[in-house]
Amino acid sequence: MKKSQASRPPARLLLGPGPSNVHPRVLEAMAQPLLGHLDPAFLALMDETQQRLRRLFGAENHALTLPLSATGSAGMEACFANLLLPGDAAVVGVAGVFGERMCEVARRCGADVTRVDAEWGDALSAAAMGSAIARVQPRLVALVHAETSTGVLQPVEEIAATANAAGAFTVLDCVTSLGGMPLRLDAWGIDAAYSATQKCLSCPPGLSPLSFSPRAMAFVRERRRPVQSWYLDVSLLAGYYGGEARRYHHTAPVSAIYALAEGLRIVEEEGIEARAARHRQAADALLESLAPLGFEPLVSEVALRLPPLTTLRLPRLISGANNEAQLRARLLHEHGIEVGGGLGALEGKVWRIGLMGENARLEAVERLEAALHTLLTS
Amino acid sequence: MKKSQASRPPARLLLGPGPSNVHPRVLEAMAQPLLGHLDPAFLALMDETQQRLRRLFGAENHALTLPLSATGSAGMEACFANLLLPGDAAVVGVAGVFGERMCEVARRCGADVTRVDAEWGDALSAAAMGSAIARVQPRLVALVHAETSTGVLQPVEEIAATANAAGAFTVLDCVTSLGGMPLRLDAWGIDAAYSATQKCLSCPPGLSPLSFSPRAMAFVRERRRPVQSWYLDVSLLAGYYGGEARRYHHTAPVSAIYALAEGLRIVEEEGIEARAARHRQAADALLESLAPLGFEPLVSEVALRLPPLTTLRLPRLISGANNEAQLRARLLHEHGIEVGGGLGALEGKVWRIGLMGENARLEAVERLEAALHTLLTS
Repeated sequence: MKKSQASRPPARLLLGPGPSNVHPRVLEAMAQPLLGHLDPAFLALMDETQQRLRRLFGAENHALTLPLSATGSAGMEACFANLLLPGDAAVVGVAGVFGERMCEVARRCGADVTRVDAEWGDALSAAAMGSAIARVQPRLVALVHAETSTGVLQPVEEIAATANAAGAFTVLDCVTSLGGMPLRLDAWGIDAAYSATQKCLSCPPGLSPLSFSPRAMAFVRERRRPVQSWYLDVSLLAGYYGGEARRYHHTAPVSAIYALAEGLRIVEEEGIEARAARHRQAADALLESLAPLGFEPLVSEVALRLPPLTTLRLPRLISGANNEAQLRARLLHEHGIEVGGGLGALEGKVWRIGLMGENARLEAVERLEAALHTLLTS
Repeated sequence: MKKSQASRPPARLLLGPGPSNVHPRVLEAMAQPLLGHLDPAFLALMDETQQRLRRLFGAENHALTLPLSATGSAGMEACFANLLLPGDAAVVGVAGVFGERMCEVARRCGADVTRVDAEWGDALSAAAMGSAIARVQPRLVALVHAETSTGVLQPVEEIAATANAAGAFTVLDCVTSLGGMPLRLDAWGIDAAYSATQKCLSCPPGLSPLSFSPRAMAFVRERRRPVQSWYLDVSLLAGYYGGEARRYHHTAPVSAIYALAEGLRIVEEEGIEARAARHRQAADALLESLAPLGFEPLVSEVALRLPPLTTLRLPRLISGANNEAQLRARLLHEHGIEVGGGLGALEGKVWRIGLMGENARLEAVERLEAALHTLLTS
């Protein structure tokens, strides 16, 4: 039996695009013995978790907020599968990998997708989104709040207001923003949003926090053609997560919910404003400490930079796809630090450095700086 | 902060239809610090896990075997979404809740579903399945190996052979059989099968072991219309789980994989034949010990009884929906034992008692018997 490696994984400082390191309290929660998914003690914990998610999303008025039993990409699919009918028009803002993915997922739901592109590393143009919305009168407008492939914080409020005024649903990807900055889904007029647990919540990957507005839920309940995914149909999920009846749909992932419950408690103990400030300070320190080594931010406009995830252009001395991959491998194996490479069009050109949740601290920046200094200058 | 309940869940002996109790080694594995999902150490663990799943499924010749990042119901959906095109004919054997669910999921994939019903508690008729297959010439034939709603072990081999002869894919639900009895997907001619981690594997819920045959994978790769679910598209999943490239698709649920890896090691240490024998012995002991209290097996034919899950008709003294629910609540709260109520047509009429994985032991039977004796006779 080859036991050792798996039972005791090597220690890593996870500074890539996620997962981030998990708080010891969360690890401890996960190791607690199971309850059944219909046990009153578990249902109370699920209720508590849903309430904390509503607060963190700023979605107190939303009709349904729950931890979907799958990863963030399934949360994306849940939004599109529930809110689109075949032939519907959808407008998607694309400024990175996850905007691209939205187009693909929406097409697989039968939608006629109009994409509005921006340079990777730049913000979507609210004006361009607005004219596409006016032209195609979509059922749904979708954008990524925090593009994990570029490190750009996209302007949500103006685009959502335009979508609302046109009677369209607004879908928002909050994968890398939930828990790292304040969200206000109600105030922004977001109809469906999804996130993930392994970024700024510092929980293991495996769940996708998901939130639907009252009018989005009303649409799903009234649509005649069933949602093409049974697993992701929020009108069915509401029977377990939304009602007194606790109607069995699927078996909730009990241990993952223990973890998320504890992770959300930790977020509330710190407070989201303090937590957001900590993320900003860590990101600022990162830029400052790596500048002398020649790393430059991809995102030129300061206001667009996403604190939990910084995308850095590589200095000349590590340009080229092989060199940067080798250096990341050395960082991992010699220093125990994981950073992320570029995705899609940015592959080989940037690193993505996540300072998320528990890792948004100066100590993490200092460890990375010291390791890179050793590797690049010795 | 209301911490105590969630952080220290009450101790339960989980004798319902799943989840079952988790082995302490699995709990410990889950509490290990995270690795990134592209870390070589994690990829090695994933490889090992996939190999162990192939062995346990008896699917050494299958093209792709992986732990899907969602629960068993998503595994079901993955089989239908990948293998069905709109307008395709599908034949589904229905003898319980999960056969019903298959019909619903297949319809949502656009299939024209022909159902072949059997009494709940009875086996599907291979002859009836065969004549439906001959009549509609389906793309796909689906059945549930081990119906968790009735406790019936369905006859797989004859039906799969008929489906194969007709050129149809065979889809098999192995949710309550994997890890509790030997499976032989290759030998039986199964093209797509799915299971769950929280039953006879004694891991937490959250993953769905999934396996596709070479011809099933070839069909998915060659189909022109994309699979309607991006998240469940096995041709995309193969890029991460099947190839050298380890192409990013979604973030694998690292901690849940730690748990499954350890759970599968424990299964192999015991050996599946010894484990299956232990499940049979425990189920026999259960019937024997509860017979004096008036519990009778729903499944009259001994050969059809599913060892991991026994469905018992309630004795007259606890008939009626309220009484049985109250008694289950007292078992839970006064004795810390969870058993399952009836689902669907069997609600209020039966209990479902799972002796799965770690719980398939005489000690569990004795604890249940003693508790019921106290509740029913004092």
